[in-house]
Amino acid sequence: MSNSIIKPQTLRGFRDFLPEMMIPRLQLIEQARTVYSQYGFSPIDTPALEYSNILLGKGGDESDKQLFRFIDQGDRDVAMRFDLTVPLARFAAQHIPQLGTPFKRYHIAPVWRGERPARGRFREFLQCDFDTIGTESIAADIETVLVIHDLLHAIGLENFTIHVNNRQLLNGVLEQHGLLERTVPLLRALDKLPKIGEENVIAEMKQTAQVDHDQAKTILQLAALKGEASSVLDQARPLVADSERGQAAIESLHRLTQTCFEIGITGDQLHLDLSIARGLDYYTGTIFETFLNDLPGIGSICSGGRYDDLAGLFTKQKLPGVGASLGLDRLLAALEEQGRLEAVGTTSQVLVTQFDANHLADYQKISRQIHRAGIASEVYPEAKAIGKQLKYANKKRIPLAIIAGTQEFENRNWQLKDLNQGRQLTLNEADLIEKIREILSVT
Amino acid sequence: MSNSIIKPQTLRGFRDFLPEMMIPRLQLIEQARTVYSQYGFSPIDTPALEYSNILLGKGGDESDKQLFRFIDQGDRDVAMRFDLTVPLARFAAQHIPQLGTPFKRYHIAPVWRGERPARGRFREFLQCDFDTIGTESIAADIETVLVIHDLLHAIGLENFTIHVNNRQLLNGVLEQHGLLERTVPLLRALDKLPKIGEENVIAEMKQTAQVDHDQAKTILQLAALKGEASSVLDQARPLVADSERGQAAIESLHRLTQTCFEIGITGDQLHLDLSIARGLDYYTGTIFETFLNDLPGIGSICSGGRYDDLAGLFTKQKLPGVGASLGLDRLLAALEEQGRLEAVGTTSQVLVTQFDANHLADYQKISRQIHRAGIASEVYPEAKAIGKQLKYANKKRIPLAIIAGTQEFENRNWQLKDLNQGRQLTLNEADLIEKIREILSVT
Repeated sequence: MSNSIIKPQTLRGFRDFLPEMMIPRLQLIEQARTVYSQYGFSPIDTPALEYSNILLGKGGDESDKQLFRFIDQGDRDVAMRFDLTVPLARFAAQHIPQLGTPFKRYHIAPVWRGERPARGRFREFLQCDFDTIGTESIAADIETVLVIHDLLHAIGLENFTIHVNNRQLLNGVLEQHGLLERTVPLLRALDKLPKIGEENVIAEMKQTAQVDHDQAKTILQLAALKGEASSVLDQARPLVADSERGQAAIESLHRLTQTCFEIGITGDQLHLDLSIARGLDYYTGTIFETFLNDLPGIGSICSGGRYDDLAGLFTKQKLPGVGASLGLDRLLAALEEQGRLEAVGTTSQVLVTQFDANHLADYQKISRQIHRAGIASEVYPEAKAIGKQLKYANKKRIPLAIIAGTQEFENRNWQLKDLNQGRQLTLNEADLIEKIREILSVT
Repeated sequence: MSNSIIKPQTLRGFRDFLPEMMIPRLQLIEQARTVYSQYGFSPIDTPALEYSNILLGKGGDESDKQLFRFIDQGDRDVAMRFDLTVPLARFAAQHIPQLGTPFKRYHIAPVWRGERPARGRFREFLQCDFDTIGTESIAADIETVLVIHDLLHAIGLENFTIHVNNRQLLNGVLEQHGLLERTVPLLRALDKLPKIGEENVIAEMKQTAQVDHDQAKTILQLAALKGEASSVLDQARPLVADSERGQAAIESLHRLTQTCFEIGITGDQLHLDLSIARGLDYYTGTIFETFLNDLPGIGSICSGGRYDDLAGLFTKQKLPGVGASLGLDRLLAALEEQGRLEAVGTTSQVLVTQFDANHLADYQKISRQIHRAGIASEVYPEAKAIGKQLKYANKKRIPLAIIAGTQEFENRNWQLKDLNQGRQLTLNEADLIEKIREILSVT
């Protein structure tokens, strides 16, 4: 064996999470869990690896999914999950007969896509989904808005807007013009609006969907409607005209927004936005996107919608549902950009320094007393020069240090050093814990 | 496209976690996180996929690791991690120059091994490791015992024993007999003791390590020592005789156990056990295993030890350390076997039934009031017959239900139904929240 060193590196598009990023990431996960649980969503987990045919479905376009796919030791064609929706569909088909409906689950787990890496885009990232399966009731759509709202509040973000649309609204307008079967090319053209502008979209619609100029204009007029709910709906009504489908969508959006307002969501936090479509073929009703008003550039941080049939590939049982997904890593990047992440290297609040290694038991005892007060505290592992130990505390941003040497053990007291304020106090054990609590609650 | 159904199934050796298993699993993870954090261990994460040569190292025996290994889209030879130790070594080599030492990290994440599945053995399972890197101080070994102890207490397990050994103790005896370079075949034979018995182990030792009968007996005599710390050390001392290495190991075990006892660990919870070895080539000092006294058959639920050099494959910086790993899935199985897992399908404590869909806003408002009291509460999504809604609560083991119809809205009060007791109370809003708190705190 040679003594050469293997270069330590991660794969392109993959990354390590160091403590200063992992601590706020876990905090976000915890906040999501708390809100999801409060609303009665239960946690599940599914394997990272699945049969490729399950992940790809029938006629699935593999290149879209950019699967990490391979043949395993048992000659099975397997792949790493690229989202949590397909595994949910498989899971639902397998377990809902036993679990019953409505089934409310959340799932926070990594997914893998071999996409070209870019700034903020990785080949391994966390998804954070919640869904209510087995009901067509708009109560579940409304609850989805409440969960998104409460989640962002819990994270400490107040300046956000949830954008809502309903896929049947455009369908209603198309139905009105006899264009329902041309939905796909029309949506594909509409999707390009921000990039290529109105004139080019109209040109494409005419070419690929054979609509006339007025029809194209009407579609664009609908998609341009956004903002305060009742005003948007008032403007949408004449465009929908007699279409039952469109009228039902308007009624559904009206019910959803009004109920949310009645519950206490403000008009600033909940807008209608008839431009959002979220892909061509999955969502069938309400659609959600959520934007941070201070950081519109990062895109939607929580998106989702209603679907008619979750698991048609895997079961004959029709499973309608509604859900959304928090873009946790995107949100983490946003919080970092806003300077809202405090870069700490540890959750420790107190460093118990070792002055005399023979007193290790005493140092650990006082540290464990501090744990009992619900405060993280660690004993420095070596009786090095106190200055070196305090340097460690500073590097990790541990705000408090405890020092005790011969004199303190004789007098049965402790030195508490406040590293932010620079002051040092001499305290007995009971006062020490009290003082630590006091200092930590004010900083 | 055909309408045939793809059979919904997981891969052999993989499994779904349904809520009733995922809820206690997350609780265990949370308890581990809490204790690790309290002692100043910081969370990190590393990618599921790494370069195969990093995971295999030099001369790594691939068949041992049973890697899920493949060539990715970019023609890289990659594999899914099979443990968290090798990724930690790679991580440490890459980041410790920036993070500094001592570096205390925990890592809770799935790993994958293509082993033959068996009862309780899966191809995807969670590891739950904590390590202190960059110090040779025994304070870190002692802290490892404290963390294991506090973790099991936090989980509610009190009847456990942490077994401790030191690899240098056997080495001392071997040194004494000039057998140090025959450690590997001797340990290999010793490892078979529980399976093949003393006579066969002696025969194997004679054959593979060319020791004489008395030498083999001495080794077995050492390995037979277990139980109360000072008695074991008293019996080990003559076997070690003049070996400095052995004497140092005895002194180290003495210091470790006495300090732990001084801190408050009981003699029942911390035993010496000179039979444990934990593999042949990684650990170099203290070794830990932890057994539940009521369930010895499930094996060690928390194991680890001290190593001289974590990351020698990846860096010239010598990184000694000590750590352990909680066998979380094994523990979960143990708790289930002991009947200590309450099979709940949700964390919801209250079901707000829908009697009148027009009052959805009121139902959601009262549910959100309950959230503010820190209690999980969900609104049933449809205004079905109340009996059907209560059936859902029973199936998910939600203990309380709230009912309000025309009369209640007129009188501004709520019906609270205690599904365990069968009783029903009429309450105003303030009293309702108070009563819910009261009932949930007593059950």
